[in-house]
Parts: sequence; C-alpha cells; structure tokens
Amino acid sequence: MSFEFDEAIALTPVGEHEYAAELGDRWQIGAAVNGGVLMATLGHAIALGLPAKPDPFAFSAHFMSASRPGPAQVTTRVIRDGGTVATVEAELSQEGQQRIAVLATYGDLSRLPDDVRTSASPVQLPPVEQCVSHEMAPSGTAKVPPLMQRLDVRFDPACVGWALGEPSGNGELRAWFRMKDGREPDPLQLLLVLDALPPVTFDLGLMGWAPTLELTAHVRARPAPGWLAVCTSTSNLAGGLFEEDCEVWDSTGRLVAQSRQLAMVPR
Amino acid sequence: MSFEFDEAIALTPVGEHEYAAELGDRWQIGAAVNGGVLMATLGHAIALGLPAKPDPFAFSAHFMSASRPGPAQVTTRVIRDGGTVATVEAELSQEGQQRIAVLATYGDLSRLPDDVRTSASPVQLPPVEQCVSHEMAPSGTAKVPPLMQRLDVRFDPACVGWALGEPSGNGELRAWFRMKDGREPDPLQLLLVLDALPPVTFDLGLMGWAPTLELTAHVRARPAPGWLAVCTSTSNLAGGLFEEDCEVWDSTGRLVAQSRQLAMVPR
Repeated sequence: MSFEFDEAIALTPVGEHEYAAELGDRWQIGAAVNGGVLMATLGHAIALGLPAKPDPFAFSAHFMSASRPGPAQVTTRVIRDGGTVATVEAELSQEGQQRIAVLATYGDLSRLPDDVRTSASPVQLPPVEQCVSHEMAPSGTAKVPPLMQRLDVRFDPACVGWALGEPSGNGELRAWFRMKDGREPDPLQLLLVLDALPPVTFDLGLMGWAPTLELTAHVRARPAPGWLAVCTSTSNLAGGLFEEDCEVWDSTGRLVAQSRQLAMVPR
Repeated sequence: MSFEFDEAIALTPVGEHEYAAELGDRWQIGAAVNGGVLMATLGHAIALGLPAKPDPFAFSAHFMSASRPGPAQVTTRVIRDGGTVATVEAELSQEGQQRIAVLATYGDLSRLPDDVRTSASPVQLPPVEQCVSHEMAPSGTAKVPPLMQRLDVRFDPACVGWALGEPSGNGELRAWFRMKDGREPDPLQLLLVLDALPPVTFDLGLMGWAPTLELTAHVRARPAPGWLAVCTSTSNLAGGLFEEDCEVWDSTGRLVAQSRQLAMVPR
C-alpha cells in the first residue's frame, strides 16, 4: 500500500546529490505548499545520502520564497561526516527560484542511550472523541484547504474559538494528529507535524497566512505508532514577527520532537 | 577605546567573502573557545557583507568540532538577498578542520514596526547587588575560566546551589549579564550572551562540559544599554541530549533575544 505522505516526499535521483521532486497541489495551504511537507522532502533527500545516520537530530530550515505546486529540484551536500553525527546542507528550488535552504545535523536515533528525564508537561488534551475535527467547522468558515484534507487533526475545544471569531487570546493551540490514510509517524513525518497546524496567531485573533522565515526542529526519538499530541504556543509577538514553539508527544507519552520558528505576523 | 569583545570578533579580509580571525585564549572554557563568541565572530563576518541588513534575525549554528585558541578562517556566501531579508551561509574552520557551519536570515532591526505584544514573563531576578558573582564562588571550587573573567555575571542566589554541590534540580539558571569592560550590548553581543552562562545541566547536578550540537538564535530588537537579564532552562533531557532555551531581556524590559540549543549531556 502506498501512503499519501510517502508519495508527497518521493524523490527521483537526477545526479549525485541531486533529486527531482513534484510538489503536489494536495498539500497546498493558500497558494503555497505547506512548509512541513517541504521540510520532510528535504529531510528525505538528506537521509538518502546518509544511510547510517538517517535521522534529523537538528534541522534548521530558512525559507526564502513560497513554494508552488509543480516540479522542484533538491540538492544536498555533506559538509562533515563525523563519528556519530553528520552535518549536511540542502536546498530546494523551483525554476531557478530559491525556496528553502537547510542546515542539519543527522544521526541514528536508535543508537542513543535510553535515559529519559523529561520534565516538560505533556500536552493536556481531552480524549480524541471529545476534540473538534476541522471537518466540524461551521459552514460559512473558510473552505478546508487541501493540506487539511490529508490530515486528521482534532483540536482541543478550548482553543478553537478563532473558528467562530472568538479566539482565546492565549496564543496556544493543542490538537491530536494523525495522517488520514493511517500512515504511522516516523522522524520525517514529524518534520511535517511541526508545521502542520494553523498559525498559532489564529488564537490571538490574527487570521491569515503567517510566512515562516526560519524553523529549527529537534527530533528526539522515533515516535510510537498511534495518535500524536501537538501543542504550539507563542509568547513574543513584536516588531511584526513572532516565535512559535511546537512540541510533539507520541502515544507512549514521550516528547519526540520540539521546534521553534520565527514567522511574520499576518497583515 | 577598544573593547575586549570587539577585539575577539575582529576580522581581517583575505579575499572576497573570506576572513582571517584569531581565536583568543581569553575566551576559553575548558580547552575550547566559547561557542557564543564564535557565533558572534561568524555573525560579524556575515554582517560585513550585508551593510543594509546588518542584524541576525535568525541565526542557526551547527557545531562540528571544538574550536581552539589560534588562527581561524571564516567564509561567507549570500544565498539570496531578497527585499527585506537575506539568507546567508558561513563556515569557520581551523587548519582545515571544520568547526561551525551557519545558516542565517539577516535584516535590519531598525526597520521593523514597533508593536510589542510580548506575553512571556520577564526573568525574575533579585537586584544586582543581591545576586552572586562567580567571583564570590567559595575557594575550593573550580578556577574561574578565562571566558568568565571577561563577563560580569550575577546569578540569582536561588540557582547557584550547584557551586556548593546542592543543585536545585529545576533545570533553570537566571543571571544579570554585562561585559566587564563596560561595552554596551548590541545584536552581535547577544549571540555571545545566548551561550555564555554555564550549561543549564549544572542546575540538575550534571557538572562538566556539554558540547552544543546546534543553536538557533532569534535577535528580536536592538538591546538598550545596561544590564541584561538572562534565563536558561531545559525540560527535555533524554537520549543523552538536552535542549536549552535562553531568553535575554534588556534594561527596558524588552525580550530582545531567544534561542534554543541541542547539546550533549555531560558524561
């Protein structure tokens, strides 16, 4: 069986460390392709060149222009392949337009020691069946974007006021997440998850697209199968920019990924 | 008057986008040169090539090997110079050994709008005169490293238990910060500040060097003159790695910089 996510991040080698990708209109959000699926595509290209270090420990993506559905070119370069980690750069472009530059440190998550002293508070979410699917949005709100048709996202009812014009003002979104077609999570899918929810600025009543300038992801463990719990928050909206922190917890209660991004406040 | 920090990050052009640096033994911490002053050196090199966009909005540094006092080579490359921001990469090496790779988004902080809706809680610190200088460390603890002789750091007494073998276990350090020679803060100095305190793992009783794999800094505003309030914290120590978040607030109470790093737990 073939999953939508694997089709989306598929790559065709066209040279040494060069790949062709096809950015699908099924992953659009507005006119652009979702940044998370683009990060996963770049992360996939890097992993292809590092079979012994397949996992993005730290993945820094700097966004230069909005990607559009259609062909894209991905290039990678190993800067240094050390003992347990490798440092790599990658770039995605379309018709000569530079879209995203990545600098990443890769390794093998399965070789890390298994101590866990996480003191972060797990995402507090009501049971899945008490949460709100975007498909339950009242008629009259915006049409469900293609991206959200690939995802099964169930929001905490306490943070969906923005859909009704009554944002909480807290600057925090919480939701359960899985792929609609049942593909289980893995480190590459986590790169999607970290940028899959609506901008956290929705919860501040600032609707509209919030272009990401930079997002750095830390993937800390291979996620267990099942639902993921996702929380995004912001605490420093200033100068037309805001930071958005994201945590992803797996079904065993492990904090498997963290990210922080810098994005532009919607106009 | 010449300041120690400016001497430390001084660069001699040796070619187009190529600079020679001299890493000083006055900035050592253990056998290595402090990562913060190295980031500031790289940040300085990038700024030299971007006179209209001198500020590091987002600065991602991936560390490959520990830098030593002595000569270093810095190269920069502008990937894309767009309307209001530019995307740039840079690398620092010593005798052919790759030390640090950087991917950064630069712009002009003075051109950002002046809205501030920060909801983060300012660092809670007792007055400077009630805080604890590292120079007040009891005899018998480790000798003050060269780095700390450049800095005037005053720790909240509530989080210096580690110096007496009684760490709080909270995973948080708070301190006032300024340069000992009085140089006022600016965006480049903030890159130093974000990695200038001891590893936050000290507060968990894990003493020893915690090598940084990756650190991404967001500089959000030009800092006002005077003391900076710095807070570092960690909440996800697992798999031999931990994240360390840092906030820097200026003397006017503005959150001027944020960072998150991924580092290795001391053995």
